[in-house]
Amino acid sequence: MIKLVLMDVDGTITDRERRVSTEAVNAIRKAQRSGIMVSLVSGNVIPVMYALKTYVGIESPVFGENGGIMLDGDSVQPFFDITKPRQFFDTLLSMGLAQGILTNRWRETSMGYAPAKGMEDRIVKMAAEYDVEVANSGFSWHILNRGQDKGFALSILMRKFNLKHDEIAVIGDSFNDLPMFKDGVVKAVPSNAEPELRKIANLVSERSHGKGTAELLLRIVRSNQ
Amino acid sequence: MIKLVLMDVDGTITDRERRVSTEAVNAIRKAQRSGIMVSLVSGNVIPVMYALKTYVGIESPVFGENGGIMLDGDSVQPFFDITKPRQFFDTLLSMGLAQGILTNRWRETSMGYAPAKGMEDRIVKMAAEYDVEVANSGFSWHILNRGQDKGFALSILMRKFNLKHDEIAVIGDSFNDLPMFKDGVVKAVPSNAEPELRKIANLVSERSHGKGTAELLLRIVRSNQ
Repeated sequence: MIKLVLMDVDGTITDRERRVSTEAVNAIRKAQRSGIMVSLVSGNVIPVMYALKTYVGIESPVFGENGGIMLDGDSVQPFFDITKPRQFFDTLLSMGLAQGILTNRWRETSMGYAPAKGMEDRIVKMAAEYDVEVANSGFSWHILNRGQDKGFALSILMRKFNLKHDEIAVIGDSFNDLPMFKDGVVKAVPSNAEPELRKIANLVSERSHGKGTAELLLRIVRSNQ
Repeated sequence: MIKLVLMDVDGTITDRERRVSTEAVNAIRKAQRSGIMVSLVSGNVIPVMYALKTYVGIESPVFGENGGIMLDGDSVQPFFDITKPRQFFDTLLSMGLAQGILTNRWRETSMGYAPAKGMEDRIVKMAAEYDVEVANSGFSWHILNRGQDKGFALSILMRKFNLKHDEIAVIGDSFNDLPMFKDGVVKAVPSNAEPELRKIANLVSERSHGKGTAELLLRIVRSNQ
């Protein structure tokens, strides 16, 4: 019996241009009506997660900044500090290795960047020296604290709602979704997911992106009945 | 020939619980594909408008804080100052007449508040002394600078895209939408709109809220053909 579905946003409930799939929105609403809790976790900032929560009609807490910050009702709860990510970000800027992104003005626990051409790997290597991690959502790059990943968000939800691994399904398409693909949870991926995720998935959709995720959600709802 | 549709968000493209209507989303996308520019103006903060722009797939600039701030591509442009709204807000709080709302942490040109029980009218009267305006979107109350209204947003778009009144349609349901219901523009309202708006409307939908707005958008697309 699945009690919670934790999902990525960009590429997972959207198309490849980040437009939300109305089929995924309808499937999320249907899953909630069937009694399943649905939560979102994304590299996005918390006011964007607030907008998704409000306009999609998500009833459970949602997470921004890769799991580093939670919106639960009207309360915003950061779990990490922005100091280290910002130091590394400032270093990248001063060295001309990256540029900032629009949403940085609303970040509280991480920083986003656009790498200069060909600098992707060099930045990843530098991150270790600065005691931070970098993650690529497939839509943008993020500088994070160690341990600030989607698995952390999942552990918060498990504790909060007293859930076991086999009561949880996760849906995602990118490398930064891997930390929530934990042993014992149902791992579902839309067909556009990275091969590494598809390989370990229990469920792979026929359609891609948001339409695939809609399919996965409806299968999860049915499997509960 | 309608070239631009400027629309409210809450109650207009959503249901009464602020969940977005997937029919409205599809109609917006269809209007854009037909060559019509679609823009949104709302009391919401700009990162929420960024989320709506991204996930709905709106291509034109969008406005937050009742028209006081614009997101155009990656550029955020405030047209007003937050000093006066914040002074009045602090006064309301210190007198125990109102409480703050979640989105205030992201406001740049206005403040939102929840009036204490029965204090609505008193606050409206006090606003004049503090040289600010207050507006109720039907979902929350906002403290604004004089002239910071949806008509201001419309004038920005008209200048930016060199539009005449008869090339514009506006869609809204509440009193704070009235300033964009200007002479000569097509005024469209979903059936849930306030009677004052319905009275001056050129188009009234049969269905209510987001489903009504979808209907209006499709009528505007057809009328262009």
